[in-house]
Amino acid sequence: MLNTVNFDHDALKNYVIKFFEALNVPEIDARIAADVLVSADLRGINTHGVIRLHSYYGERLLKGQIDPSSPIKTINENPATLALDGGNGLGQVVAYRAMSQCIKKAEEAGLAITTVRNSNHFGIAGYYAMMALPEDMIGISLTNSQALVAPTYGFRPVIGTNPIAVTVPAGKEKPYVLDMATSIVPFGKIQIHEKAKFAIPKGWGINKNGALTNDPGEVIDGGALLPLGGPAELRGYKGYGLSLLVDLLSGVLAGAAFSQNVGRPTKNRNSDVGHFFAAIKIENFRPVDMFKADMDDYIQALKKSPKLPGQNRIFIHGEKEFEMAEKSLRTGIPLLKEAVDALKSAGEKVGVPFDLRPKT
Amino acid sequence: MLNTVNFDHDALKNYVIKFFEALNVPEIDARIAADVLVSADLRGINTHGVIRLHSYYGERLLKGQIDPSSPIKTINENPATLALDGGNGLGQVVAYRAMSQCIKKAEEAGLAITTVRNSNHFGIAGYYAMMALPEDMIGISLTNSQALVAPTYGFRPVIGTNPIAVTVPAGKEKPYVLDMATSIVPFGKIQIHEKAKFAIPKGWGINKNGALTNDPGEVIDGGALLPLGGPAELRGYKGYGLSLLVDLLSGVLAGAAFSQNVGRPTKNRNSDVGHFFAAIKIENFRPVDMFKADMDDYIQALKKSPKLPGQNRIFIHGEKEFEMAEKSLRTGIPLLKEAVDALKSAGEKVGVPFDLRPKT
Repeated sequence: MLNTVNFDHDALKNYVIKFFEALNVPEIDARIAADVLVSADLRGINTHGVIRLHSYYGERLLKGQIDPSSPIKTINENPATLALDGGNGLGQVVAYRAMSQCIKKAEEAGLAITTVRNSNHFGIAGYYAMMALPEDMIGISLTNSQALVAPTYGFRPVIGTNPIAVTVPAGKEKPYVLDMATSIVPFGKIQIHEKAKFAIPKGWGINKNGALTNDPGEVIDGGALLPLGGPAELRGYKGYGLSLLVDLLSGVLAGAAFSQNVGRPTKNRNSDVGHFFAAIKIENFRPVDMFKADMDDYIQALKKSPKLPGQNRIFIHGEKEFEMAEKSLRTGIPLLKEAVDALKSAGEKVGVPFDLRPKT
Repeated sequence: MLNTVNFDHDALKNYVIKFFEALNVPEIDARIAADVLVSADLRGINTHGVIRLHSYYGERLLKGQIDPSSPIKTINENPATLALDGGNGLGQVVAYRAMSQCIKKAEEAGLAITTVRNSNHFGIAGYYAMMALPEDMIGISLTNSQALVAPTYGFRPVIGTNPIAVTVPAGKEKPYVLDMATSIVPFGKIQIHEKAKFAIPKGWGINKNGALTNDPGEVIDGGALLPLGGPAELRGYKGYGLSLLVDLLSGVLAGAAFSQNVGRPTKNRNSDVGHFFAAIKIENFRPVDMFKADMDDYIQALKKSPKLPGQNRIFIHGEKEFEMAEKSLRTGIPLLKEAVDALKSAGEKVGVPFDLRPKT
């Protein structure tokens, strides 16, 4: 088990807001960025939360490599489509605004797509897709990322971990929230194993020679992640196809960087990350109440399905994260020791000391 | 290796047209259905081609379980959205018409979604997504199917093999054509191995007790297919999530049957299969020529990427199928012995004897 310490949700969020404000991010935007980041930790996605506050965002703001004013520009707009330039702003702020506009357009047109170029790492993709849920819409959120994944039959990282997030509202049941890297695991999972000096299961990644490895350090040091599916015999080329697809939609269609041109968050130039958002209004296809009743039936049928020996639950996507969030709101958000260290070091550099006491 | 015999493309297609016409399918619709079916064999997707001519289509038409007139009705229409009822028509005909309308709407609105309920098995999903390519659009085609896949931690088939097909046009390079079951392999792959008495690789499916098996017969006899990704440690729940997503979009959103209610093509009732189609007009986001130039660059970069020892090519999705189709147009379409037997038996039942001579 990894070591964690619990922190109060609101206190942690307020700290992150202050952190961003100290870096000249306007308060309203700082609140958005903080909510996205802390939501990741709240939902148990600790690879994408405050552990990256400085390395992915603070450092770049400090060096002037992200524009804290997030000056978004419209490139092309039609009733159901919108192409934006994120102005090299904070990924979370740009993505939040882009998805807000997408939902607004879908309210009128029945569905809408918004693409974004010239943005930055935006945290968890699921956050933006979930914005569609209260509007009785299906939400989609994609982004490309630095090249970390090898294509089938190759061994150099050419494609990002390019996540797919899709949310679908239900009735009494919790909504369906898929939020997945198209690699077997995201890069942050490898980094956390490496920092904690834990081995990784065989299959997650390869070393610089293309051989499967249990050593997270070898994946980081010139190796690559493998796409969902693993070897060709078990159809890893489908995962490779999905990774590529996300880049075609959020990179090439958006007119952003793609493949190896997407900047590493830690590199000294504009990242030019691309995003793709969509919202689909359910009532344009069938009455929302009937839709939600079917969703509930489906979810219940899955949960009642017979379990493998040793298993007592079948999960719906997002369910574990909803339960984790409910618990963490009560008992505090468990942060990895590595995340606390990162916050302390970040706070010193920005002049906003991280002095939160653990929640007991 | 599996035994195959080559047949001329046009002759085979003409035979299938006559077959459908003998079952009261109007000529124009028979041509559509034949083109979809023979395209599968032409592209090397022999699980979804004429091998199923009788068992999935002829038999049902003969018994009055598919309406040969494919009487499609509009349920709900808006500038960018369209919900259709397929009238229990031939899946290929319904899907072709639905995607045609989707493309037409996207031409005006910039993007469009068409859902379909009350349809039947439609063959290869990729066919309809590819219809978007000549229009400089991105095409999406999804369908649900009979429940054959077990969810993670379960072992009973609750979800279909629910394919995802997405096509993206390129410039000088061949377009990107992803057409994948969200299970590791489609059911037809298991059936072909079973008929040929071949073992299947461990991982593709489980037996009725939930154990991995090499015996295709055990998968067919009360077992289940596994979702893309395989075991939980290697993130099979992502494949399960994608299978479920396809059913939420093509089953639940369309108002069609979903999960275990989707009829088996061989069962004695309406299948009520659901489909989901989308078309996205590239020029609404950026100039088409720039988009295509970037696609070409991306494809070339992937192909030039270093190969694993023993490998000499990195493939783009759809590339093998384009090469197969080019070759098969010249030399004839290689049909499995099982497919030829199926055609002979089908022809007898329908009174249209399959008397094509192999191409030599």
